[in-house]
Amino acid sequence: MSSTTGTLFKVTTFGESHGKGVGAVIDGCPPRIYLSESDVQIQLDRRRPGQSDLTTDRNEEDRVRILSGVENGQTLGTPIALLVDNRDHQPIDYKNTSDIPRPSHADYTYKIKYGINAASGGGRASARETVARVAAGAIAEKFLLETYGISIVAWVSAVGNVIAPEMGGDVSRSQVEISSTRCPEPETAEQIKVQIRQAREESDSVGGIITCICKNMPVGLGEPVFDKTEARLAQAMLSIPAAKGFEVGSGFAGAAMRGSTHNDLFIKKGNYLGTHTNFSGGIQGGITNGEPILFKVAFKPPATINKQQNTVDYNGRNVILKAKGRHDPCVVPRAVPIVESMTALVLADMALCQMVKR
Amino acid sequence: MSSTTGTLFKVTTFGESHGKGVGAVIDGCPPRIYLSESDVQIQLDRRRPGQSDLTTDRNEEDRVRILSGVENGQTLGTPIALLVDNRDHQPIDYKNTSDIPRPSHADYTYKIKYGINAASGGGRASARETVARVAAGAIAEKFLLETYGISIVAWVSAVGNVIAPEMGGDVSRSQVEISSTRCPEPETAEQIKVQIRQAREESDSVGGIITCICKNMPVGLGEPVFDKTEARLAQAMLSIPAAKGFEVGSGFAGAAMRGSTHNDLFIKKGNYLGTHTNFSGGIQGGITNGEPILFKVAFKPPATINKQQNTVDYNGRNVILKAKGRHDPCVVPRAVPIVESMTALVLADMALCQMVKR
Amino acid sequence: MSSTTGTLFKVTTFGESHGKGVGAVIDGCPPRIYLSESDVQIQLDRRRPGQSDLTTDRNEEDRVRILSGVENGQTLGTPIALLVDNRDHQPIDYKNTSDIPRPSHADYTYKIKYGINAASGGGRASARETVARVAAGAIAEKFLLETYGISIVAWVSAVGNVIAPEMGGDVSRSQVEISSTRCPEPETAEQIKVQIRQAREESDSVGGIITCICKNMPVGLGEPVFDKTEARLAQAMLSIPAAKGFEVGSGFAGAAMRGSTHNDLFIKKGNYLGTHTNFSGGIQGGITNGEPILFKVAFKPPATINKQQNTVDYNGRNVILKAKGRHDPCVVPRAVPIVESMTALVLADMALCQMVKR
Amino acid sequence: MSSTTGTLFKVTTFGESHGKGVGAVIDGCPPRIYLSESDVQIQLDRRRPGQSDLTTDRNEEDRVRILSGVENGQTLGTPIALLVDNRDHQPIDYKNTSDIPRPSHADYTYKIKYGINAASGGGRASARETVARVAAGAIAEKFLLETYGISIVAWVSAVGNVIAPEMGGDVSRSQVEISSTRCPEPETAEQIKVQIRQAREESDSVGGIITCICKNMPVGLGEPVFDKTEARLAQAMLSIPAAKGFEVGSGFAGAAMRGSTHNDLFIKKGNYLGTHTNFSGGIQGGITNGEPILFKVAFKPPATINKQQNTVDYNGRNVILKAKGRHDPCVVPRAVPIVESMTALVLADMALCQMVKR
Repeated sequence: MSSTTGTLFKVTTFGESHGKGVGAVIDGCPPRIYLSESDVQIQLDRRRPGQSDLTTDRNEEDRVRILSGVENGQTLGTPIALLVDNRDHQPIDYKNTSDIPRPSHADYTYKIKYGINAASGGGRASARETVARVAAGAIAEKFLLETYGISIVAWVSAVGNVIAPEMGGDVSRSQVEISSTRCPEPETAEQIKVQIRQAREESDSVGGIITCICKNMPVGLGEPVFDKTEARLAQAMLSIPAAKGFEVGSGFAGAAMRGSTHNDLFIKKGNYLGTHTNFSGGIQGGITNGEPILFKVAFKPPATINKQQNTVDYNGRNVILKAKGRHDPCVVPRAVPIVESMTALVLADMALCQMVKR
Repeated sequence: MSSTTGTLFKVTTFGESHGKGVGAVIDGCPPRIYLSESDVQIQLDRRRPGQSDLTTDRNEEDRVRILSGVENGQTLGTPIALLVDNRDHQPIDYKNTSDIPRPSHADYTYKIKYGINAASGGGRASARETVARVAAGAIAEKFLLETYGISIVAWVSAVGNVIAPEMGGDVSRSQVEISSTRCPEPETAEQIKVQIRQAREESDSVGGIITCICKNMPVGLGEPVFDKTEARLAQAMLSIPAAKGFEVGSGFAGAAMRGSTHNDLFIKKGNYLGTHTNFSGGIQGGITNGEPILFKVAFKPPATINKQQNTVDYNGRNVILKAKGRHDPCVVPRAVPIVESMTALVLADMALCQMVKR
Repeated sequence: MSSTTGTLFKVTTFGESHGKGVGAVIDGCPPRIYLSESDVQIQLDRRRPGQSDLTTDRNEEDRVRILSGVENGQTLGTPIALLVDNRDHQPIDYKNTSDIPRPSHADYTYKIKYGINAASGGGRASARETVARVAAGAIAEKFLLETYGISIVAWVSAVGNVIAPEMGGDVSRSQVEISSTRCPEPETAEQIKVQIRQAREESDSVGGIITCICKNMPVGLGEPVFDKTEARLAQAMLSIPAAKGFEVGSGFAGAAMRGSTHNDLFIKKGNYLGTHTNFSGGIQGGITNGEPILFKVAFKPPATINKQQNTVDYNGRNVILKAKGRHDPCVVPRAVPIVESMTALVLADMALCQMVKR
Repeated sequence: MSSTTGTLFKVTTFGESHGKGVGAVIDGCPPRIYLSESDVQIQLDRRRPGQSDLTTDRNEEDRVRILSGVENGQTLGTPIALLVDNRDHQPIDYKNTSDIPRPSHADYTYKIKYGINAASGGGRASARETVARVAAGAIAEKFLLETYGISIVAWVSAVGNVIAPEMGGDVSRSQVEISSTRCPEPETAEQIKVQIRQAREESDSVGGIITCICKNMPVGLGEPVFDKTEARLAQAMLSIPAAKGFEVGSGFAGAAMRGSTHNDLFIKKGNYLGTHTNFSGGIQGGITNGEPILFKVAFKPPATINKQQNTVDYNGRNVILKAKGRHDPCVVPRAVPIVESMTALVLADMALCQMVKR
C-alpha cells in the first residue's frame, strides 16, 4: 500500500531520487477534464528548490511529460501517467555515508526493513518523491475546480519562532507567491527570511507551519466513522516527509476551550445553513458542512544539516558525522504546493466515493 | 469505506446509538491467539460512562458477546463478530430536536448527505459507535502483545487549561486507572477534577489532550510514502469523534526547533541502534525505529451542553435551543481506551501487511 | 480480504457452521431503500435445505434479524448488520473425523494454513457460510431493483448428464420455483429428479450447472482492464463453494466459433443501440452494453458422500472413511439463490463505483 | 479500480494503443529479487504479434525500460515502473470508423461510459494494454520462482474445433515454444495451423482455449470465502480481452460427475499429503493443497475481421462495415504469456497476503 493512495481516485507514485526519474499514475480521473502539461508544470515549478535566495541553489528543472490518459487537451477517463526525469543531482557529501545512518533520516529503518542502503531505495524517503505527488495533485485540483469550483490555498504561517497572525480565509495563491517565504503577511515574511538566513549561516535548519484553506466546498463530502474528512486529511498530511502534526479547525487550542464558545451556531446562508464561527474547520461528523475546510500542518526542521553530529555507525561505533556542501535550511515554503496537492488528492477521492444520492 | 478500516486486519463496525446494539467484525485476525470475552470486556468497562462522579451518571452496562471466530479460548483465523446490546438510553431531551440541527453535531451534515434525521442514522456519529472500536481494539492489543510484546498506554495529559507535566515513557495502565481523570500525575489530576466540575456546574463542557505511548516496538513496521506509521495513526486518531489534532514526537513544538537540536543522534542499544532523544516519536521515514512511538491527540469540548444556544432550524428560522437532562462535561478520560484501541488496530494491520522479509 | 468483498458496497460475512450463528455486515448500502426482514427472509428460505424430497431432510429454520442500518422500513445509509442464529445441527457422523481429512473437503488445507481442525474454523468452508451471502445479496437486489429496475434470475440448467435446452431470457423466478429442482423446463426437471434420486440411493452425489440472466441492465456499468464486469462476476461465482467453472455469453463454445458468426451486429433499439445476437453476454470491453448479462456456473458433486473411501489420515496412514447419516446428493437447486445473491453484490458495487458522468 | 489490481502486490497499468506508450507500476514487490530488463523482455517478445506466419505480420518491437525500483540488478522494495514506447502502428483501416461502433468491440460502451471515441480512450480495450500486464507478470514470476520455486506454464489446447489431448502436467515452456501455435502436441499443432490459415483466407477469425498449470505450489496459499484461489484466478483470466470462460480442475465436466469419482482421495507424499487424482485443480476450500493448480481459459474469436458486416452507426442508421488491411485471425497463441502473467500476479499477491503463521 506504500506508494498507492485513494479508493476511486487512485494515485501511485514511483521513482528514487538517484534513479532515472520520478512519476505517478492517476487511475480513476474522470474523463473530459481540460488538462495540459502546463497545468501540472505550474505546481512543479512552485515545489522546486533553488527558486530564491532562501533555499538551496540547486535548480532542478523538473519537466513533466504526460505519457497517457490525455488526448486533445482532455482527460480520457483512462490512467494518466506522468514522468519527470531526474537530472544530475548534487547529493550532499557525507564521508563514509554508506556506513553511517544519518540521524533522523530513514537510512536506518530502510536498511533494517528492506536490507538496502540509503543511496538506493531510501531515495523514496527523499523529498524528490514529492515531485510525483505535486504532479498528481495538480490534476486533482483541476478536477475539483472544474466540477465543484473548489479552490485550495496553502501558505506558510510560521517558521521557527516567528508566527504569522491569523489570516482569515481571503488569502489567494497569488498573494502567497509575492514572497519567496510563501507567507502572505509582509511583515512576518521579512522576519521569516531572517530566521531562515540565520539557520543557514549556522549550518543549521529550522521547521515551520503551513495553514491550508479549501473554499467553495459542497455540503456532504466525506464519510462518517473511519474515513472522516479530517481523518483522510490527517493521513495525507502526516504522509508528507518531515510533517509532525496536524490540526483542523480549533485544533490543539480547542482542547482548552469551553463547549459554549466552541460550538458553531447555525445561521441561514442562502439556500443552505452556514455557521457563525468555524471552530469545526468546515467538517461535522466527518462530513463537510459547506464552510471552508481549515487546517494546519507542522513540519520539523530538515535532518540534513552541515553541523557536526556525534552519532554511531551501523556497527554501533562512535563516529562524528559532518556533511559538506549546500543544504536546504527550511523546506516549509516548498512544502506549500505539496500540502495543496495532498489536499486535492483526498478531496478528489472523497468526491468520487461519495455515496449515491437518491 | 466509511465503517471499515484496515487492509489485512480489517475491522467493520455497525450499529446506531438508538438501535438494537453496536458491534464489530474483525476479518483477518490470525489464528491461535488466546481470547475470551473478558479480554474485551475490560476495555469496554473503561470506556463506559458513569464510572465516576466526574462523568455523566448514566451507567451503561455494555456486555460484549463473541458470536464467531473463537473456540476453546482461541481465535480460529476466521472473522470475529462482536455484539453489544443497547440498553434503554436516556438521550438528552431537546425540544423539537427533529427540526433543529444541534450546533457542532452531525445532524445537519447527515441530513444533507443521507436525507435522514439525527435520531436515526446520525447515531453513527454518536460516541456509542466507539464501543465497537474499543471491542475490536482489545483483540488487536492481544495479538500485538502475544506476538511482539507491544504494549500501548494512553492517558489524559490536559483538560481545559490544565496541562500535566511531561511523563516520560514509564506510565503503566494501572497508574492511569488510579484517578477517574485518567491523568497519572496526582496533582494535575486534582486540578482536572476542578475543571470538569466547574464546566458541569456551568452547564458547559471542556476539551482536553490525550498522550499515548507504544513500547517494545519492533524495527521495520510501517510503509514509506502514503502509509507511513504516523500517517496511519493520524487518520485513526482524527477518526475519533471530537478529535481536532494529532502530533507525533516533537509535533507542533518541533516546528520551532533547530535541526541540530531535533535530530535524534544514534547510540548503540544491545544488538540494535537506538537514539539519544526521541523527537521523531519512534518513526523515521514512516517506519518504526524501535524507540517508543509517542503521540498526542487533542479533543474539543463536547457539543452537547445545557446552556441556551441561539441558532436556526433547518428552515433557517432563528430559534433558542436549550437541552435538559444530564450531559457529559468532559469525554477525554473515557476517550483513553478509544485512543489505545485505534492505535492497536493500526499497528496490527501494519504488522500483518509488513513486507515479506527475504 | 478473505471474508470481505466490494469496494463501495462492501460486504463482510462471519460465523462458523458449528458456532452461535452466521451473519453479514453491509457497509455502503445507500440510504432510503425500502427494506424489511421479510425481503431477506424470502431468499434465505429458498437457500435452506430440507425443502423437498430431493434434498436432505434437515430443516434449518434460518430466521434473519436486522441489527442495524434500517429504521422505519428504510435503510439509513449506515452499515446493515444481519444475524442468523445456528440451530442444533446434525453434522454428518464420521468416525475419527478429527484424525482424517475428508477427501475434497477443506479439512487438510485449513489444518495446514491455520493449525486448526475441521470441526471449528473449517466451518467457514461449509455451505452454511452462504446463508450470510444470500442475506446480503437480498439487500443488494433490492437496491438494484429500486434504483435501476435490474432483475436477476438464475435456474438449474443441468444436473449430472441431464442438460436443459436453452431457455432464452424469459425465465421468471416464479417459473423457477415450480419445480423443487429449480429447472423451469418441466421435462428436464423430471429427468433431473431421477438423477438426484439415483445418486442418493447409491450413497453418492452429483453436480450440475446454473444459468443466470440479468435484465434491464443500464449501459456503462463495469470498469475496463482488471475489473471488467465478467471478471468481477467470475470471481464472485468461483467463490461459491463447489463452483468449478464460469462462462459468459458464448463461453467455452465461443472458442470454437468464427468471428463472423460470433460478432454481435448492432441494431437500433429505441434510443440506444442493441445487438442482434448476444454472444458477448451483455458486456463489451468489460462494460455493460444494455443487453442482458448471461452466464453459467458449473458445480462439482458434493464431497460428502456415504460411500466408503480409501484415503489416509493426517499421519499418512491408510484408512477407510465411511460416513453415516443423511447427505445432500445435489446442492445445485439450493445454490440458485446463492448465484443470484453474489451477482447482486457484484452489480451493486459496480453501480456505486461507476465513474462520475460529466 | 479499473487499471489497478492486487492488495499487497499491487499492479497498475497505463497507456492507450494510440498514445506514447504503455507501462505498469508494481507497488509492493519485495526487495532483493534479481531482476533485469531481459527478464521482462523475454515474455514481451512472446506476446508480440508478427512472430510467425500464423499471425499478423506487424512486428512491434516492444522494448521495455525499467524506470525505478531496481538497482544493481536487484529490486529495492520500492515501486517498479516499466515503460514500453509505442511505435508507429498500422491500425486496421475502417471507413468512417468514428461514426460506426465496431461489432463486439468496446467502441459503443466506451462512448456511452466516457463520452470519448474508440480512437483514443478505447485504446485501453486494445490488446496493446496487455503488454503492460505481461511486463508486470514477468516480475511476479521471478518473485515466485526465487521464493517458492513455483513455475507456471500455459499452452494452447484448442483452436476452433481442434482440441488437443490432455497433456498432464509435464509440459515445459520450451516444449510450448517449439510450434508457433504454442500447442505442445505436434499433431494437434499442425491441425491448428490449418484452422488458423483457413480463417485468415476467409477474412475471418477463430477462438481457442489455453490450459495453464502451476507447479511446486506451497500448501496454504489463498484465502477462504470471497478470495479463494480459484476466484482470484477467475477474475484475472476473465479480465483478459476476449476471454469468455474459466474452469479449474474438473471444471464444467465436473458438473456431470459423481462425488465418488470426483473426490480426490489422499495419499502420503513425503512429509505432506497429496491426492491420487486432481479434480480439485490443486485447491480445496479456496486454499492451495500442494497439488498443481490446473485451469483452462476460453477465448472467443477476435472481433476484427475483414468480412463485410451489416450493422448500424451511432445514430442507428444501417451501414455496411468492411475493414481493410491485415487482421490477426487467432490471438490464442499470443495470449499464452498473458495467461501466465495474470496467473503470476494473482499468486504473488496471495503469497504476500498470506496470513501470518504463528
